[in-house]
Formats: sequence, structure tokens, C-alpha cells
Amino acid sequence: MAKPLSEPSAARPAKPLALTLGEPAGIGPDITIAAWLRRRELNLPAFYLLGDEALIARRAQALGADIRIAAVSPSEAASAFTDALPVVATGERASAEPGKPDASSAPAALASIRQAVIDVRAGRAGAVVTNPIAKSVLYRAGFRHPGHTEFLAELAAENGRVPQPVMMLWSPQLAVVPVTIHVSMRDALTQLTSELIVSTVRIVATELKSRFGIAKPRIAISGLNPHAGEDGSLGHEEQTVIAPALKVLRNDGIEARGPLPADTMFHGAARQTYDCAVCMYHDQALIPIKTVAFDDAVNVTLGLPFIRTSPDHGTAFDIAGTGKANPASLIAALELAGRMAALQS
Amino acid sequence: MAKPLSEPSAARPAKPLALTLGEPAGIGPDITIAAWLRRRELNLPAFYLLGDEALIARRAQALGADIRIAAVSPSEAASAFTDALPVVATGERASAEPGKPDASSAPAALASIRQAVIDVRAGRAGAVVTNPIAKSVLYRAGFRHPGHTEFLAELAAENGRVPQPVMMLWSPQLAVVPVTIHVSMRDALTQLTSELIVSTVRIVATELKSRFGIAKPRIAISGLNPHAGEDGSLGHEEQTVIAPALKVLRNDGIEARGPLPADTMFHGAARQTYDCAVCMYHDQALIPIKTVAFDDAVNVTLGLPFIRTSPDHGTAFDIAGTGKANPASLIAALELAGRMAALQS
Repeated sequence: MAKPLSEPSAARPAKPLALTLGEPAGIGPDITIAAWLRRRELNLPAFYLLGDEALIARRAQALGADIRIAAVSPSEAASAFTDALPVVATGERASAEPGKPDASSAPAALASIRQAVIDVRAGRAGAVVTNPIAKSVLYRAGFRHPGHTEFLAELAAENGRVPQPVMMLWSPQLAVVPVTIHVSMRDALTQLTSELIVSTVRIVATELKSRFGIAKPRIAISGLNPHAGEDGSLGHEEQTVIAPALKVLRNDGIEARGPLPADTMFHGAARQTYDCAVCMYHDQALIPIKTVAFDDAVNVTLGLPFIRTSPDHGTAFDIAGTGKANPASLIAALELAGRMAALQS
Repeated sequence: MAKPLSEPSAARPAKPLALTLGEPAGIGPDITIAAWLRRRELNLPAFYLLGDEALIARRAQALGADIRIAAVSPSEAASAFTDALPVVATGERASAEPGKPDASSAPAALASIRQAVIDVRAGRAGAVVTNPIAKSVLYRAGFRHPGHTEFLAELAAENGRVPQPVMMLWSPQLAVVPVTIHVSMRDALTQLTSELIVSTVRIVATELKSRFGIAKPRIAISGLNPHAGEDGSLGHEEQTVIAPALKVLRNDGIEARGPLPADTMFHGAARQTYDCAVCMYHDQALIPIKTVAFDDAVNVTLGLPFIRTSPDHGTAFDIAGTGKANPASLIAALELAGRMAALQS
């Protein structure tokens, strides 16, 4: 993407970023500490962790990280950030050992997410950046949302209206949005409708402007079938589902091209021709971005009334507390959230 | 692939390669001439074109290419190759102008393919390299095979038994094999069976040894669904179709790993862990290889009783005769066929 957000910007967000704790027994604390330690070298935007100061202190000790922690309020976070990792208490203690979620895990993780949304909506934070959660741990504690993103959408509801969250994977080389996401291929074929494509691409087009500062976004839309159906001989959804959606979108004034054969959309020269690729299913979008930007792809949720980014990996219980966790994706998520927030201010 | 064929080899095939004409009105003649012109610079293995000398002379003139053409028999091709483009006549004239297939196109294209198979099976050629054909042109002339590869398999039948051709896309960075190929996603879900996976991977394993010289091939097998089904929550084919196939393959002594989440199989570090990725459908295999090796991926047909490679693009009627056609994929196909043939001799 040859555009504002692909280049580091000198602009700083006016407000600190609210970083959630994620699953306390996962690598969230590890990568949070690792990112903060590199704040000067990378000129990271100021952030504060919504969590439990004692947990972070214990994890820093386990990691052999000599850091200062500052218990602060959000308004104090930006100035504290230079010399200490700012932690804003949620009031929920997290007692879990690395790799071993316990009964305190779910309440601590959920309180942090709720408080982050409250902070960003109240104007105390510039964006929400979320550490990975463990859905299975939350489910055992009675959590009833399909996932992290849907929970955030619920928290963002206004007058009973829950926004449609749209998952984008972003890297400096490529941004992708899958129209159907965490469902089987069979269900993806059923869920894929012109309406879903239209509503998704509208959100993508709107937010490429408002959140990414791209005046005239160019959106590439994949076919579903090999060779985009080859004029109907390899499947007809291109003609019956995708083309009608494109017609609606172009009538909206959106620069949307497609349906394009997915296999030739993602090489270096092809990527220069669009700002975001909208794909029909999970792997069609995630294979190319994880092939070209495995370590530093960022998950961005569009469609919410606030900025939300997230590292593109899980809790990695097996390496929590060992120092082996790679903070690259969280760092990329913090940097992107900072640049997006700066654009709003 | 850190293996013999990923590095240029000094070994030369004992016999010339038989290169088919492809669709005469397409870019086949253009890229053949362009490849021959770079024979010294790239140290290309000797090849001969099975076609019509007059067509090549006309195309060379249209391209402004000052080349010598030698009408030869296969046994004379290797020595002629240094100073002239060797053409072995098929007896079928090709009168088509660039971009405009005519009634002579189909007979010329088919005669070339038939003769190439006869030559390689008779031991006159070391391998078959095919230029792109136009299926629609052949269909209008009564051709009844699903495609180029299936036609080659028919020609390779022995005692009425048609071999199962397996399509591999090969590049120095990555080799992939799709289990289902040119069918809609709906049909791919229906066609995908344990038996098809087993028969495909057996051919891949056998030929990675015999044709690629890999003593102990490592094969990575993708899941079908996002996250390889996530233990059944995102689809069950991993458990009901792919895992049983893997069990059979491992009992065969084949080093096959999977089902793996497709999105994390193709980044640089992951690619070091296997020699070939076997994927469940077209785009799952072709998206990653065309993302990392767009210009020089080679189509290799496994499962035939001879070596066959092919450039990974079509006839490109719109640029035939203009000099714009990129010979990179044909050159890669010739180089790979030469290395494979040298390994046999």
C-alpha cells in the first residue's frame, strides 16, 4: 500500500493507547514487557496496560526483565511511559502462572477489554490494542460470544444496534479482508451472499478513507472459484453472487475491481494496484498475507466506533514466561494503532 | 527446497528436450525464439521445437529477431542447437497470424504434442516441455479431453491403463500440488476423498525421489478448512478425510505431516521444513506459489512415464507477435526439465 500508513509517521497520537491484558497465563504480559523495553529504539506510541500490576511484576521477574512499573490513571500514562510501563488497574487480580490459566483468568481478561472500550469511548485513550485471549478459558467461565471481535462489537452497541465488525489483516506490503471468516469451507459457501459482500466492502471503503487516510481507496475483489470461475465453467458464484455485489458497490462510487482470479492477485506488481484485497474466505485472504508478512501482520477491526488493532497470533501457552515470545506482531499493532489514532486527532 | 534441483547443475541431459509448438497463434513461438536467443547466457539445455519451420521464420521476422532455423531430426538437434533453433517438422503447417488462431491451429498443436510423446518414449528426447495451448480452439476442432495434461496422460496409456497425472507447480522457493484442481469450490468439496489424497501423495513421494533426487521427501499436507478445522469446530474433513489418508501414507513409510493450517504453511521459515506442499484445492496451492514466484513457476506433470514441464501461463493472444511476451516461465520449464532429465541419464 503506497499510502500514508505504510510509512512510519512523525505524527504522534494525542492520547495514549489502551492495551488489554489478554489471557494472563499467555504471552500477553511477555510481549507487552518486551514491546515497552523497545519503546525508545522504535519510538513507540505511549500505551498503558489495563491489568494487574502484581502479575506484570511477577512475569517481569520470571523473564529476568528489569523494568519499572507505574500504577497510573489513563491521564498519567503518556508521561509515565518514558520511564515505566504504565499499568491502569482494572481491580481484577490475575493469579495464573505462565501457561496455566486459572479461575482468575477470565474475569481479569474480560474486565480489561471492557475497561479499554470504556476508556476509548470516553476519550481517555486513542485506540484499543488487544492482547490475545484464550476462547476456551472464557467459554468455561460462561463467556457467550463467538470471539474477541464479536465481544468488542457488543460492547460498542448503541441504542441496541450492534455494529458489523470487519476483520482486516494489515501489513506494509498487503492488506486483506475475508468476507466469510471462521467457518468451515462448506459454511463459507452458504454464508457468502451479495449482501454480505456489499456491507463488508462498504465498511472497508469508508474506513480506508477515515481511518487510513486514503482519499480514493482502490479495492480488489477476488473470485470464489479457481480462475474466478473462468466464465462459469469452474463455478457460477462469480456471476450470481460477486458480480451483482460489485455493481451495487460501483453505483455507490466505490472503486472496486473484480471478481479477480485469486492466485494472481498477490505478487509484488499486482499488490501495487490496490489498497486492500477483499477475499471470499479465510485462507484466500490469510495465505497471501502470512506468506509475505508472517511476523508482523496486524489484525485490525473495522466497523467499530473506535480503533482496534491486535497482534495476529494466539496465547502460546507453551512459551509463556520463557522469553521466547516474539513481540513483533504486538509492536506492529501498537505502531499501526498509533498512526491511525494520530490521523484522527 | 534445499535440494538438488533447487540449484543450477552442471550436469547436462544426455538427450535434447522436445518442445511442443503449443497454439501457433499464441505466444509459444515468441517465447521459444526468446528462450533460444538466451541459450548461451543461461546455458540452457538443448531443445528442439516440434512444429512448422515456416511459422517460426515468419514469427521471428515479425519480432525482428535475427535467428537461424535448422530443420533437423531429433538426433541432430543437440549439435544444431548452438548455432540455430532446431525445428523438427511434424508435417502439419500452421498458417495462423499472431493472435488469430485458424483452422490449421488445432491440427498443428495436437500433432506436435503427439510427436513429442512418441519421441520421449522412443528415447529420442530427454523430456517433453509444452508450450501453452488454447483449449477453446481445440474444442472447436473436436478435441475431447479436459485439458493438456489429461491428453498427455491418454497418450501415455499402456495396455489400456491411463496413468493418474498429478499437477505440481515448482519454483526454487516452493513446490505445491493441489489434490483437486480445475473444478468449482463446491465440486472440490465433493471430489476430495481419502483415496484421492492417498493416490496423489503416493505419486508425489515416488517422483520426488525418482525425478527430483530427494532421498527422503518431506511432504506437508494442508487442511481444507480455516485453522485446519480447529479440532472439528471449523469443519470436519480434517478428521474424516485427511487424517485417515495420512495414516495410510505413513503406513507406506511416507514422511507426510498434517493436516496443517494452510495460512501458516508458506512463509519463508515454514517452507524450509518440507519439499512439497500438498493442498486440497487449486487456490490453496496456487496463491502461495504465485505470490512468491510469479514469473518463474513451472508446471510439472507427475505420474506420467516421462518428464513433462510447462510454463505456467496461457497463450496470451493479445501480445503474440509483439515482443512483449515474457519467456521467464518457459526458460524455467526448460531448465527444470533439463535438470530432471540429467538425473535420469
